[in-house]
Amino acid sequence: MTGSNHYDVTTWPVGDPAEDVGEVINSIIADVKHRQTATDAGDGGKPGAVIHLPPGDYRLRTQVLIDVSFLRIEGSGHGFTSSSIRFNVPEEEWPDLHELWPGGSRILVDLPSETADEAKGAAFHVERSGNPRISSVEFSNFCIDGLHFTPDSSGMPPENTYLNGKTGIHVASANDSFRVSGMGFVYLEHALTIHNADALSIHDNFIAECGSCIELRGWGQASKITDNLIGAGFRGHSIYAENHGGLLVTANNIFPRGASSIRLDGVTRSSITNNRLHSFYPGMVVLGGGSSENLVATNHFLRDHEPWTPFLGIDNGLDDLHGLLRVSGSHNSVIGNHFSQIIDAQGIRPAGATPVTIRLTDGTGNFVSTNHVVALDVDASSSDSCYAAQVDALLTTEASAALAVTTVLVDPASSGNTILDSGSDAQVVADRAANAFRPTPTVGSR
Amino acid sequence: MTGSNHYDVTTWPVGDPAEDVGEVINSIIADVKHRQTATDAGDGGKPGAVIHLPPGDYRLRTQVLIDVSFLRIEGSGHGFTSSSIRFNVPEEEWPDLHELWPGGSRILVDLPSETADEAKGAAFHVERSGNPRISSVEFSNFCIDGLHFTPDSSGMPPENTYLNGKTGIHVASANDSFRVSGMGFVYLEHALTIHNADALSIHDNFIAECGSCIELRGWGQASKITDNLIGAGFRGHSIYAENHGGLLVTANNIFPRGASSIRLDGVTRSSITNNRLHSFYPGMVVLGGGSSENLVATNHFLRDHEPWTPFLGIDNGLDDLHGLLRVSGSHNSVIGNHFSQIIDAQGIRPAGATPVTIRLTDGTGNFVSTNHVVALDVDASSSDSCYAAQVDALLTTEASAALAVTTVLVDPASSGNTILDSGSDAQVVADRAANAFRPTPTVGSR
Amino acid sequence: MTGSNHYDVTTWPVGDPAEDVGEVINSIIADVKHRQTATDAGDGGKPGAVIHLPPGDYRLRTQVLIDVSFLRIEGSGHGFTSSSIRFNVPEEEWPDLHELWPGGSRILVDLPSETADEAKGAAFHVERSGNPRISSVEFSNFCIDGLHFTPDSSGMPPENTYLNGKTGIHVASANDSFRVSGMGFVYLEHALTIHNADALSIHDNFIAECGSCIELRGWGQASKITDNLIGAGFRGHSIYAENHGGLLVTANNIFPRGASSIRLDGVTRSSITNNRLHSFYPGMVVLGGGSSENLVATNHFLRDHEPWTPFLGIDNGLDDLHGLLRVSGSHNSVIGNHFSQIIDAQGIRPAGATPVTIRLTDGTGNFVSTNHVVALDVDASSSDSCYAAQVDALLTTEASAALAVTTVLVDPASSGNTILDSGSDAQVVADRAANAFRPTPTVGSR
Repeated sequence: MTGSNHYDVTTWPVGDPAEDVGEVINSIIADVKHRQTATDAGDGGKPGAVIHLPPGDYRLRTQVLIDVSFLRIEGSGHGFTSSSIRFNVPEEEWPDLHELWPGGSRILVDLPSETADEAKGAAFHVERSGNPRISSVEFSNFCIDGLHFTPDSSGMPPENTYLNGKTGIHVASANDSFRVSGMGFVYLEHALTIHNADALSIHDNFIAECGSCIELRGWGQASKITDNLIGAGFRGHSIYAENHGGLLVTANNIFPRGASSIRLDGVTRSSITNNRLHSFYPGMVVLGGGSSENLVATNHFLRDHEPWTPFLGIDNGLDDLHGLLRVSGSHNSVIGNHFSQIIDAQGIRPAGATPVTIRLTDGTGNFVSTNHVVALDVDASSSDSCYAAQVDALLTTEASAALAVTTVLVDPASSGNTILDSGSDAQVVADRAANAFRPTPTVGSR
Repeated sequence: MTGSNHYDVTTWPVGDPAEDVGEVINSIIADVKHRQTATDAGDGGKPGAVIHLPPGDYRLRTQVLIDVSFLRIEGSGHGFTSSSIRFNVPEEEWPDLHELWPGGSRILVDLPSETADEAKGAAFHVERSGNPRISSVEFSNFCIDGLHFTPDSSGMPPENTYLNGKTGIHVASANDSFRVSGMGFVYLEHALTIHNADALSIHDNFIAECGSCIELRGWGQASKITDNLIGAGFRGHSIYAENHGGLLVTANNIFPRGASSIRLDGVTRSSITNNRLHSFYPGMVVLGGGSSENLVATNHFLRDHEPWTPFLGIDNGLDDLHGLLRVSGSHNSVIGNHFSQIIDAQGIRPAGATPVTIRLTDGTGNFVSTNHVVALDVDASSSDSCYAAQVDALLTTEASAALAVTTVLVDPASSGNTILDSGSDAQVVADRAANAFRPTPTVGSR
Repeated sequence: MTGSNHYDVTTWPVGDPAEDVGEVINSIIADVKHRQTATDAGDGGKPGAVIHLPPGDYRLRTQVLIDVSFLRIEGSGHGFTSSSIRFNVPEEEWPDLHELWPGGSRILVDLPSETADEAKGAAFHVERSGNPRISSVEFSNFCIDGLHFTPDSSGMPPENTYLNGKTGIHVASANDSFRVSGMGFVYLEHALTIHNADALSIHDNFIAECGSCIELRGWGQASKITDNLIGAGFRGHSIYAENHGGLLVTANNIFPRGASSIRLDGVTRSSITNNRLHSFYPGMVVLGGGSSENLVATNHFLRDHEPWTPFLGIDNGLDDLHGLLRVSGSHNSVIGNHFSQIIDAQGIRPAGATPVTIRLTDGTGNFVSTNHVVALDVDASSSDSCYAAQVDALLTTEASAALAVTTVLVDPASSGNTILDSGSDAQVVADRAANAFRPTPTVGSR
């Protein structure tokens, strides 16, 4: 310990970090609160603390409750490895694997059995009443592993359900200037759920193979979700936010599956820019619940087919008319995005339909300009090897035929929009008397 | 101490870090210089050092002078909390607050009384003459707190003036490959002022409630300001740069107030892309002093009204003809930005004027394309609760009427520009004989 | 040592880290493997380790071989300083320099003499056969210095050749969730070479004065190269990737020299967005080998002239018809980029040619829209001072005359492309019968 506010879970005298690191951390937090009581001793008095987790396996049987500001919990390794691949390898091959489990500074979430109350299933629960809002709690560079998923009624293998009632970090009360960076999350039903955030930073994390990855709930403002590698399960969202203003979602690489890559509900004056988005289903990005005045720009959208055998036939239930980007709201800007819609024409739903890329369902005053839609018809193939299948599918671009799509569909309930250079006259379905429109020029059209 | 070049301020034998961490750090730097004297001993000899600040309150009464390369000062917590909210809470409520001060690894800047010399008011002063330029100084993950603002002649509450003569970090001489990351800055008149920077990285910091936040002065090149949360006071700039080339300002979430969110003066061949910008005044982004060949793209601009009671009536003095984005210079690109101009028509200055969004004042050859301006007339409201007021204002989009604006105004001194799809014929005021222009199509125009 | 999986090279009993840190680290890795043998002990057993390098000079005479997952090697300083400037200062001035060598936590790569086998010349070699792929190896915040370059047959000063057979980190086998962040690389022929990457993050590094900086070879997917400062030598690439899908290259500041700033070969469905790119030669960004469905958006391209005396007359051999951005492939999007092409008309090659900005050589269905090309004729000047010369050149924008350029050239082998608002009718050379085209309006054209 290099200073009295620096703690190490492996040297703390209370509890056994290998058996229940939750007990250890709660004891440390109690010590911080016991030692730091004055709110104004020499212009300070409550600097908080850092709790270090060296690389190691730390089982957590007791939920950590954080109710002090300026607490930093940091490890020395985000420790991700694919539990999904491992659990879908035939069990007889397991003895030949170098390792079976994630690693780094790793929390094994082993709370009592599932509960319907998400907050109770969280490894780290942050909640404090009164004023000010709890501030500057930081999570850095460790791994939170939910270990296993559990059976559902579908009969699919339990380890593929993305259900286990476990959450990595659950922030229940209003908060300011929190940071989550360098973390790994794996095999949790909810990785990171934060209510009522102000000036939150979720940066440079690895959040994958979780039911849902990042969920910003309640309301909030002026936050950022940047530079993360993210990929939710088929049931959940890679990024979800509701009632947020001024949210910046940028520079993320969001891979499948995820019922949505990004879903916003009642979000205003926010940006989804410059992300790489990949999904196996429609509804990749949804601006719902009257989300307005948002900017969706220079993102790369790729929608293709599930190539990995264990998840064949599983999807989010949406058909190809839903839109890869779906907007319910007003005054949004959709500018400069690339869309690759790479699907097997035989599998289009409803059969014979013309798939939709961008769909404006209701609202007014949206501005859709300079978007490039590439639509190709492929023979979907699959493989038992997760990684090989994905790379092969990604790199296959040549052996494909053009596919007719509606690049922009404007429903009658949406009007007063401006659609420019985002599809030819034939590709844009919109009431020309109710929306401003300029088609992308085509060869020979001039 | 895990190695002879690793120092901890809490275990160093000279000085008392709680009473004057400046004395402690200067003593450590002297030790580094005393021990590392050979410039070419075994192909090395001056590796520098790391100075660790565990979480704690460290008063600084002596300025730290850094004149060695490869010095890293690192803490374990950026420790931001809103001092502005706290100081605007009635004092009788203070005893009920959980904490009054910022925390983390926290420097309390308590230098002798104000001085007109910014450099003397800096907690950390970096300066070295001779060659090479001082290189690879790193500041990481601690908090610099100016404690209090001081009265000015306006009669406003002293804690709201954003004046105290204090600077967090002041770099006075040419430098290379510096890094500032994970830091918190609060209640400083100038947070971070760096002269003559080359390949500087200012990344993932929290810099708020400071008079000015980031100031790049003198000249410089090839630097980046990325992924920060920033918000200056009403007098200063959130980001200021002069005479820089190749500066990349991206992925920042810049909130109010700030006389400007970003102001460039004589800056060339630089990028302001993909930021979220929010201000209560015009002049949000200013390209001045002949700033040329810059790219301003896919940013989200929101200008609305001050919603928090303590700052009602305070602004930067600019009227609504000034422009949210103002360009004095040539050959700049303004592409794919979203602007939300949400103002109370009753308060427009000069009264009855049509507010301006983008204004080109002088220069030639600017390219303004595919920008979407949303202008709405709102009834400005305010609240005693900072956070609630801001979130409420942000999320209010529906109860608003359209507001007539000039989306692009080209002054006669600026000509030869190209304005495309950035406003209807009626919304763009520019000499059509002197500038190329294509209006955004409107409903029914085709 | 704060925990049994935390190692410090300066306290490990085997080897001498100053004389051969490679031996020390290999001994530590052997210890990790010796202690962590069970693959499923209590749902864990192989958490890996962290190896810390305090600031210091660590000679490496033995290659480090990494074949365990979840290993983090971390220092406390990226330690970059310009060896190129130092070696081009007259030797009689060296005694007056404050320091001669890079610093921080610094590896001095001193492997046996050059070899044609890149893997053997690597300071850190990562390779493991079997399953699963090696995961979550992390390199953080230290410096890898190749010390010297070596003579070639050109007669140029040996320290300017960018050749020495040394690599910083070489990853030879398939890998998952690796992280390289906060690192410094200098004077290596290859800084960072990674084969077969999945979900790799290369973030916030300083990689300069290396032959090539980042090379992603073999194949890979879903990776990101973000927020780095990068600049290769004239022979190599700042960023190179082959057969990758879903790669996100964003927020990088890439400075000269580099034969290419970014070169992609057979890369699909990837993004190059929002970077600042500066080069002294054509061929700045190359999408080759059938690279398709990529997005190149909102980047700032600056091509000007070598201003520093030691490298005058050296270039990548490409003439001005090559294109700053060159695309061989289909269905790519090139949207919203700024290009500054600042060249001395006297030096154009072939003499009298009209320089090309964007060139589509073959393929189909590319979408090029809303790009702004600024072309100016300057008198190239140079200086003995690297830094002053560069800044002066960067800030010189006014004293320049317009230069005629072909903003987009579409070769006959490329057809079915759409070119919008990226040059006037005279500036775009493309078969109008084979490509869709809308010229940027010019003054007086309407």
